[in-house]
Formats: sequence, structure tokens, C-alpha cells
Amino acid sequence: MKKVAVILSGCGVYDGSEIYESVLTLLRLEQQGAEYQCMAPDVPQLHVVDHQSGEPVPGESRNVLQEAARLARGRIIDIGTASAADYDALILPGGFGAAKNLSDFALKGDQCTVNPQVAALARAFHDAGKPVGLMCIAPTMIPKLLGQGIRCTIGEDAEVAGAIERMGGVHQACGVDAIVEDTGAKVVTTPAYMLAGSILEAQSGINKLIDRVLELA
Amino acid sequence: MKKVAVILSGCGVYDGSEIYESVLTLLRLEQQGAEYQCMAPDVPQLHVVDHQSGEPVPGESRNVLQEAARLARGRIIDIGTASAADYDALILPGGFGAAKNLSDFALKGDQCTVNPQVAALARAFHDAGKPVGLMCIAPTMIPKLLGQGIRCTIGEDAEVAGAIERMGGVHQACGVDAIVEDTGAKVVTTPAYMLAGSILEAQSGINKLIDRVLELA
Repeated sequence: MKKVAVILSGCGVYDGSEIYESVLTLLRLEQQGAEYQCMAPDVPQLHVVDHQSGEPVPGESRNVLQEAARLARGRIIDIGTASAADYDALILPGGFGAAKNLSDFALKGDQCTVNPQVAALARAFHDAGKPVGLMCIAPTMIPKLLGQGIRCTIGEDAEVAGAIERMGGVHQACGVDAIVEDTGAKVVTTPAYMLAGSILEAQSGINKLIDRVLELA
Repeated sequence: MKKVAVILSGCGVYDGSEIYESVLTLLRLEQQGAEYQCMAPDVPQLHVVDHQSGEPVPGESRNVLQEAARLARGRIIDIGTASAADYDALILPGGFGAAKNLSDFALKGDQCTVNPQVAALARAFHDAGKPVGLMCIAPTMIPKLLGQGIRCTIGEDAEVAGAIERMGGVHQACGVDAIVEDTGAKVVTTPAYMLAGSILEAQSGINKLIDRVLELA
């Protein structure tokens, strides 16, 4: 049975992991008979966003690991305790948490940095030749997470795609129901809620991503 | 196209809506071609629970509607503005929020009361002959929400089943992959995470519940 590490970044599209993407990821892993372990960094969220108004809540603070635990019914570990040797593949769902809590892409664009624990773990998977799947806005981390010249997609947003190219990535436009694979790097990406208008649309690409990552694992 | 109202109670199994149950509900509604509208009461949560430790966080307060908005990517309405006339059916996913925020069953057991806006809306569906589906712990509300003598399930927990019976409900034991239907009342229930050990197990009963509610609508 293949075992997959899933890195979460909170719980909610505007300040954490995109909930539908995360649940669809876990559901597909179960459907394909894979085991998984959710993990997140034990750090404060950049923002707490009122998801009804869409506005940040001044003065409120939440912890990424504690909020991500909601998506895992409590079965989550601190990413600082995880080892790539224990898993066959790595998946990063999207949501603004990937660009606010795992990296600071939402603030700094192509000048962003990635959380060092996330970077160390992802690099260990990559260096061991294990596949990495990223969805939605998470592929913006690829150049600084996994290295230069890796082909990926965030859909068709020209501004975000340009930032990826300036950081040394290779962006390829892609529909919501498709994936982009860098065959040499074993990196698989899909636009998910960068383009999806429904849970079903997001699922169409996410299922393909999970299936391909498991084939590569 | 059938339109379904979905009542949420926060975001997270221990203090709000069970996330997997809620997402599986919306996914199945989309798969079956139904429209949906998420809604929640604009009231404080009873607890904020750290989902990593499972313990309530002293002094922290969150709003049910704002947190439930995470499960709806912001597309949610205050249940106080909803009218049963606009919908064909009503679904209540579970999670402790159903017993902490929509009712106080978690505190008071068979002496519980139900949030008056939730009760008014659910009763309006019921009185109009429209089907109501409830999952997990949410069926504990049925006797006070919809009336006496209605057959339902919360799985096989004897203590919770006994409380339902003392309130005037009729409890029927049921496996995680099945549903219980009160044909006269058009009330459909499934145990979901009262019994589920995986997302797939929860999905097996939830899909049957959604499908049956849509047939009755």
C-alpha cells in the first residue's frame, strides 16, 4: 500500500488550505487504496479571514497546524517531525494558505521565500526521486521548493504564471480538468480552484493528479 | 433543477459541521445535478476546540455563520433570511456543531432545545411535505425539530439512541453504508461519522441519503 504525505496550510480558502481540494485529495487517495498522513507547520497564520465578508479580521491569530487539524479530524502531525523516507509521494493542495502560510508568495510574489520545514521536506522527496503533486496556487512554490526549470501549471492567470517564470519555473497553461507533468522531475500540477467553478470541476483535475502521482510513486 | 438548502453549524467536527460530511453532501448534490444553498445561524459557537488536542480553547469565541462560510467558499446566507418556499429539500450534515450550535444536545441531552431559526425553517420544510435529510448526530434534533414518532438513526450508540427515544423519536440501528427512512414524514438519516472509519465509509451512506432525499423532493 502506497503512503502519501499531504501538506496542509490551515482550513479555509482565504487563509488556509482550500477545503474542497483537500477533501477531494484525501477521498481520491482512499478510493485508490493509498494511505495518507496530513501534516502542517506549527506556525501562526499570516491572516485570519472572515470567509463571509472576505476581509481579514484585525488582531485575530490562529495556528496553521491547529486549524489544519480540522481538515484531518485531529489526525495530523507537525511537519517538523515528518521524514520523506516514510512516504512514497507528497501532495500539496492549494488555497491561499499555500501562498500565505507555507510561503509568502501572496505578499512578495517572485521575491517570495518558502517555510524552511516545508522546503526541507519537499526537497527530500524530490531528491529521493519521489513524485510531488501540487494544485491551485501551490505550484508557485515549485521554483524555490524543488528547483529551476520545472514545468507546471496554475491554470491561465498571466500574472501568477509570469511570476513563476521569473523565479525560474516553466509555466504551461492548462484547463481545470487536466494536469501538467514534468516527467523528468516527477512533478504533477493541476489548476483546481484557480479555475474551478464547482466542486465537480475541481475534482476532474484533482483525480487525474492523484492518480498520476500514485502511478509515479 | 432541484434546489436544496444545507444547514451548516461551523467548520470542524468538534465544534462545528463535520467537514467531510459537508463536502460529500455538496459533491453528491452536484453529481446529481441539484443546486444548493448553504446557510447557518449568525450566533456564537458554544466552543472553539483545538482539533489537534481535542480540547476547548478557553476564552476564544467564533461565529457559526463566519466559520461555516469556510465550507462554502463564502457563498453562504444567514439562516434567518432563508425561506423553505425557495427550496425543494433540506439537508443537515453532522459534526458536534449540530449538538452544540444548532441545538444544545451536547450539554442537555434529552432536555435539549433547538435554535429557533433552525427549528422554524426545518418545520416549514416538513409542514410543506418537503424531505429533510440529517446525518451523524444531527438526527438527535428530529423530535424537537420535526415532531414526535419519527423513525431515524444515529447508528448504534445506545446512549444517544435512548435520548432520542425519550424525546419521542423512534430509533432504528443502522450500518454506516445504509439509510433509515420515515416514509410518512419524508425524513432520511444515515450514521456517517457516528460510525465511519474513513471518508469512503461516510460517503457510502451519505450518497444514499442525498439520492433518496432528491427522489423525494
